[in-house]
Amino acid sequence: MLKIERDILGKNNARAAENRAWLRARGIFALNLVSSPGSGKTSLLVRTLQALGGRVPAAVIEGDQQTEFDAERIRATGAPALQINTGKGCHLDADMVARALPRMALADGSLLLIENVGNLVCPAAFDLGEAHKVAILSVTEGEDKPLKYPDMFAAADLMLLNKVDLLPYLRFDTARAIDYALRVNPRLRVIRSSATSGEGIDEWLAWIDAGLAAAHASARRA
Amino acid sequence: MLKIERDILGKNNARAAENRAWLRARGIFALNLVSSPGSGKTSLLVRTLQALGGRVPAAVIEGDQQTEFDAERIRATGAPALQINTGKGCHLDADMVARALPRMALADGSLLLIENVGNLVCPAAFDLGEAHKVAILSVTEGEDKPLKYPDMFAAADLMLLNKVDLLPYLRFDTARAIDYALRVNPRLRVIRSSATSGEGIDEWLAWIDAGLAAAHASARRA
Repeated sequence: MLKIERDILGKNNARAAENRAWLRARGIFALNLVSSPGSGKTSLLVRTLQALGGRVPAAVIEGDQQTEFDAERIRATGAPALQINTGKGCHLDADMVARALPRMALADGSLLLIENVGNLVCPAAFDLGEAHKVAILSVTEGEDKPLKYPDMFAAADLMLLNKVDLLPYLRFDTARAIDYALRVNPRLRVIRSSATSGEGIDEWLAWIDAGLAAAHASARRA
Repeated sequence: MLKIERDILGKNNARAAENRAWLRARGIFALNLVSSPGSGKTSLLVRTLQALGGRVPAAVIEGDQQTEFDAERIRATGAPALQINTGKGCHLDADMVARALPRMALADGSLLLIENVGNLVCPAAFDLGEAHKVAILSVTEGEDKPLKYPDMFAAADLMLLNKVDLLPYLRFDTARAIDYALRVNPRLRVIRSSATSGEGIDEWLAWIDAGLAAAHASARRA
């Protein structure tokens, strides 16, 4: 079983490297959004696209076992969205993304937001070719998740501590949650966010803008 | 890959059938609690054990990728708990439970609560030998989860719609969530619950009591 797992991950990594080269050549900044189901990823993406207001070309790949719900929510903002249904599968993989990319008519220099299947375990192991994994942790989920699901928080470069508008109604220790996340990954950047109140959206957009600038510079050098 | 998957599930099902026979012979009523991470499973188990107050012997198996946190929370109630860490694994399997059972000194006629790894995908496919899967859906997760992760809600016999104390602070359509769950599984029983307010705990305990009575009757017939 270990050999099969290594083969699968090895093939996935090769395909992810192809995706990364493809994206880099076009100056496209791609993010892989990972979290539990119901952490608020789609609402956050909708708010992000509205805040961007078309000043950056942006597109979304949506991963879910079933339904086209999330892609429909994204399209309502005016942004193009491609839905991948994984069926029994618990994560997106690099090949699914590779097959999606040429179908999306992505503009050079654009932002590509990939919303993975809601799952704190399996997507951690599968590189899609993204620039960064962004882990979303909702404050309704409890402080202990980074220690209980460490692979995901170790694999991410940014954690959005989301739904902070609900903090007054919860017993949730924000400092402890961040401390746990930093124990697993000391270089993790953390932004507190809420799609409902708008808290943290400017900081998140500034982080995206810095990534876009780096992607554009990298494409010019290539 | 399909053949390997069938082999894994076939072996798991055989082991689960052994677990089920072992539990049945002892009149032990076993539940497999499945949900997203952070749906409130452990808090609900703590409240359940406190409400039972020792009138039924109860024990807990806790599944997490890492940490002993949940088992410690359970032991604080006075109930015995065994923690299984799955490492890279995204679900408990029947063999893990088979190896745990003889180590637990379970009383005949007792209640065994198995808290699976928080994951709405992978645990759906793995029978552990339980009497029922119980799906916990927190109202913070959004109404659409039963349609987006249908295998889990199809595999469950009971859905606890949890954290209902937070409904005043959320946009969550309870009727729609239940409608979606029943579309996937028309025979699903639904109880609205909150470990914080205690809502639904009596109804949940009555459901457990009925299951215990059936398990005891079945053991006597065997």
